Amino acid sequence: MAARSFTIGLDFGTGSVRAVVVDCANGHVLGTSVFDFPTGVGGVIVDAHDPHLARQNPADYLAGMRATVPKALAAAAALDPGFMNNRVIGIGTDTTGSTPIPVDARMQALALDPKWTQNLAAHAWLWKDHTGADEAAAITAIAGEFAPEYLAVLGGTYSSEWFWSKIWRCLKVAPDVFDAADSWVELADYIPAVLAGVRTPADIRRGVCAAGHKAMYSPDWGGLPSEAFLTRLDPKLAALRGRLFDKAWSSDRPAGTLSPEWAAAFGLLEGIPIAMGAFDAHYGAVGAGITTGTLVKIIGTSTCDIAIAPATAAAPIVSGICGTVNGSVMPGYYGVEAGQSAVGDLLRWWVEVVCGGDEAMHAALSTEAARLAPGQSGLVALDWNNGNRTILVDPRLTGLIIGQTLHTTRAEIYRALIEATAFGARAIIERLNANGVTVERVVSCGGIAEKNPLFMQIYADVLGYPMLLAGSPQTPALGASIAAAVAAGAKAGGYDDFESAQQQMTQLADTRYLPNADARRVYDDLYGLYRELHDTFGGVDGARADFPTLMKRLLVIREHAIGDHTS
Amino acid sequence: MAARSFTIGLDFGTGSVRAVVVDCANGHVLGTSVFDFPTGVGGVIVDAHDPHLARQNPADYLAGMRATVPKALAAAAALDPGFMNNRVIGIGTDTTGSTPIPVDARMQALALDPKWTQNLAAHAWLWKDHTGADEAAAITAIAGEFAPEYLAVLGGTYSSEWFWSKIWRCLKVAPDVFDAADSWVELADYIPAVLAGVRTPADIRRGVCAAGHKAMYSPDWGGLPSEAFLTRLDPKLAALRGRLFDKAWSSDRPAGTLSPEWAAAFGLLEGIPIAMGAFDAHYGAVGAGITTGTLVKIIGTSTCDIAIAPATAAAPIVSGICGTVNGSVMPGYYGVEAGQSAVGDLLRWWVEVVCGGDEAMHAALSTEAARLAPGQSGLVALDWNNGNRTILVDPRLTGLIIGQTLHTTRAEIYRALIEATAFGARAIIERLNANGVTVERVVSCGGIAEKNPLFMQIYADVLGYPMLLAGSPQTPALGASIAAAVAAGAKAGGYDDFESAQQQMTQLADTRYLPNADARRVYDDLYGLYRELHDTFGGVDGARADFPTLMKRLLVIREHAIGDHTS
Repeated sequence: MAARSFTIGLDFGTGSVRAVVVDCANGHVLGTSVFDFPTGVGGVIVDAHDPHLARQNPADYLAGMRATVPKALAAAAALDPGFMNNRVIGIGTDTTGSTPIPVDARMQALALDPKWTQNLAAHAWLWKDHTGADEAAAITAIAGEFAPEYLAVLGGTYSSEWFWSKIWRCLKVAPDVFDAADSWVELADYIPAVLAGVRTPADIRRGVCAAGHKAMYSPDWGGLPSEAFLTRLDPKLAALRGRLFDKAWSSDRPAGTLSPEWAAAFGLLEGIPIAMGAFDAHYGAVGAGITTGTLVKIIGTSTCDIAIAPATAAAPIVSGICGTVNGSVMPGYYGVEAGQSAVGDLLRWWVEVVCGGDEAMHAALSTEAARLAPGQSGLVALDWNNGNRTILVDPRLTGLIIGQTLHTTRAEIYRALIEATAFGARAIIERLNANGVTVERVVSCGGIAEKNPLFMQIYADVLGYPMLLAGSPQTPALGASIAAAVAAGAKAGGYDDFESAQQQMTQLADTRYLPNADARRVYDDLYGLYRELHDTFGGVDGARADFPTLMKRLLVIREHAIGDHTS
Repeated sequence: MAARSFTIGLDFGTGSVRAVVVDCANGHVLGTSVFDFPTGVGGVIVDAHDPHLARQNPADYLAGMRATVPKALAAAAALDPGFMNNRVIGIGTDTTGSTPIPVDARMQALALDPKWTQNLAAHAWLWKDHTGADEAAAITAIAGEFAPEYLAVLGGTYSSEWFWSKIWRCLKVAPDVFDAADSWVELADYIPAVLAGVRTPADIRRGVCAAGHKAMYSPDWGGLPSEAFLTRLDPKLAALRGRLFDKAWSSDRPAGTLSPEWAAAFGLLEGIPIAMGAFDAHYGAVGAGITTGTLVKIIGTSTCDIAIAPATAAAPIVSGICGTVNGSVMPGYYGVEAGQSAVGDLLRWWVEVVCGGDEAMHAALSTEAARLAPGQSGLVALDWNNGNRTILVDPRLTGLIIGQTLHTTRAEIYRALIEATAFGARAIIERLNANGVTVERVVSCGGIAEKNPLFMQIYADVLGYPMLLAGSPQTPALGASIAAAVAAGAKAGGYDDFESAQQQMTQLADTRYLPNADARRVYDDLYGLYRELHDTFGGVDGARADFPTLMKRLLVIREHAIGDHTS
């Protein structure tokens, strides 16, 4: 019997970092530790004057690694007598993104310098920071005119959440910070570089996941956007280009090896490989066992949809989809990313912000909503309280609820909001299917997928697919540990490719939700109304001429649902 | 100095009856007593199986009069040593409506007969009973084809709340009750007839208010709808016609004189005049001091708008307005009635049904909402949770809220719902102004008008009129007492006409709300968006071509409101 081997997965979420210790033989998690980021509100620095601002303190990332990895290792040792720290063969990391961080010439985050620590612009610009909306719109306009190829693979619209929007915004509102930054690094690349002891930004090995999905990087046009293009935005951005990177790598290449300092801090062997960093959703898809034909839905506050397509053919171009990047999920495949900007957040808004409730109310409304038949509430909603990420790619769209009476209950609205997110999910799947990325099965992961059977059944009924569940409750961390096993390679006790690593280290849960034929028929009708609202308010050409009768057609659906066709 | 004189006003609301004793010299209320109807839920008989059903027990009306009038008289005597029961010169009554009651040949309400008391169809069909929706639609269709003149003065659509819809519904679902009824009487006519000791339905003197606004009565076509027309509905309705009435009267004619039995029960002189009965909103408008050019808004769970126009010219035809009836408010004027089907009810729905709050939450949300600038929430709503009574006359329209984000608060939605009702009110005023019923001033009464300054300021800002308040908190009862003073006449210590009675007996409150110019500008823009939604979903021809950009235009308004034009 071969010696056992283990990897560590580090998952940097919005509010915390999680370390897991994983058995390479079967993907079992032997030890876990979670660290809540101490700065700000739930780990996020906010600004009472600007609801679009969301920053993070890079010191929290470093403190989080120091705190969690030793604890996860100790937990593994306590659980499994066969576990030993010196059999850990690699570390993989995943993070939120696009979360760019300004760094100085020594590869230190500016915010760690006392000179800059009070300046919000010197911190990490968290994925959900939307202060760069004007810059995003300008990038979209300028790229549309001068370099449409940059956006074609990103769904046609550059987002305020992305790399260049944020850096340009910083240049405008905090030019001193911009000038002090030697370079900018995505959090996904920053963590591996820190662990590898990289001392200058030029030595960072960047991953194609962040570069391709957020920074308009592609080998097709020689890397990052051209100097000429960036000059059109601002000459200072063009000057920055040379201090960023020329080449980004897919996840089969390690980002580096564990530095002596961090090896000592963790109690691990120095020199073990650090896998290339990637976004949580991408490694989450790996941990969920993604294959060609599988759509992985990571359902949380927002939803990220990941699919892959063999890189043997030309890249699939799917308009309105966040991005198609060669190697961003696994080497040898195009990674296709889509998403919905508010899912769990939409329910949290309803229950906590509007109704003033807590977890108990979530459960109570879910129970009450489960007693309703599809269509019975007479409601249909748009899931746009945080804009539409896919397929309209418009962060300035807003929410809509239609069909209320004086008897409409909070549970009915709760259900209508779940249904709205399911309709949004269906719009994405239809768009993928129509553009050569055929969805044959749907695998979900994330807290909502595991905890809310009503939610999952509605999705099965609306989407018309069985809703499968990933076997691990922590697919991003598991995916990162799989990447670590691949970075280590079979000789070291890992794997030589992602496919064979997934085969051994991932599985599906026993629970699955099957579509109900009666519910599907009602939801087909309701989805038609949703699409009318979606296309009309989303500005899609060719909205239906009988749109004005929508309220009445909604009532007809309701009356059929409650078995009352006369009143 | 002339001898003092007093009248009694009896106001039959949805949940209670109120008796007031009023000084004819100045309209001061010297004594009041309220009786809550004991039957059902808050005085309303409901049916768990049918949310459209709302009935009332006629016994409650009689018990209410017996209980309240002596108490109000005792209170007046206690307050004012100059008050004496034998100086009460008349009684006026107002009621909800259309609230038809089946009566037997002895003018007894069927429900008072033990044989029928368990049958819901034998009770009073309360104004908000909507079980006759199918019948209303059929009446609208048949009248549209064979007698469009019947509906022209009623806004073009016959309502499920009205007289014939309810009686026809009874004929269909409870033919035994229909057959047992010798006649049907509006509550507004039933009360005066009871007080006058009328012994047979043929002797009831009916008021033109209920007859003209609810029963398609007009001297222009010889009274009630023709036998030929009613035969098209059901021959049994045609047969009923002869047992109803040929002639209805305006409110300068007494309905009768106080019977010995009721005089004894009240401790009043027998033979004093009973004013013609009318609906609460109509006598409320009298009590609020209505004149030509004044719109009186009675703002409660729903809102009733009343205007008058001199009967010297032809009747103003205002499409989408509930009704225009000669003499229905005051003799010598057309009474014009419009209304909104959910106002206080819309706020109650939000606070109590959805947010699970109580009076304290109403107050807290009002305080919080008052801190918001117009447009700041980025929301616009339609006030149609209970359909649209005016100007679309469509009970099957439903609610809509648009513009939500993940930060939208319950207070913002609360304010948006108030604004929606104000926009609905503006649509009514614009329709009146455009059709020859010019609104020069707006006088409000009702609980919300007196208790909610935020609500009133929003109305001033949206409507662009100063919002004046009636001086009396009980304008319907005061209006009924004015009608009693006119029925008694000047010789008896009353007045010979409504105008001079109003001059002495009504006044405005000191409080008034003036439009703010800045708020008006924002609300002009928001009202434009409201009208787009209103006209589109209301099916009005010629909706704007740029309707699909509505969400974005709403955001622009929001950004101006919060002083942020860039993000």
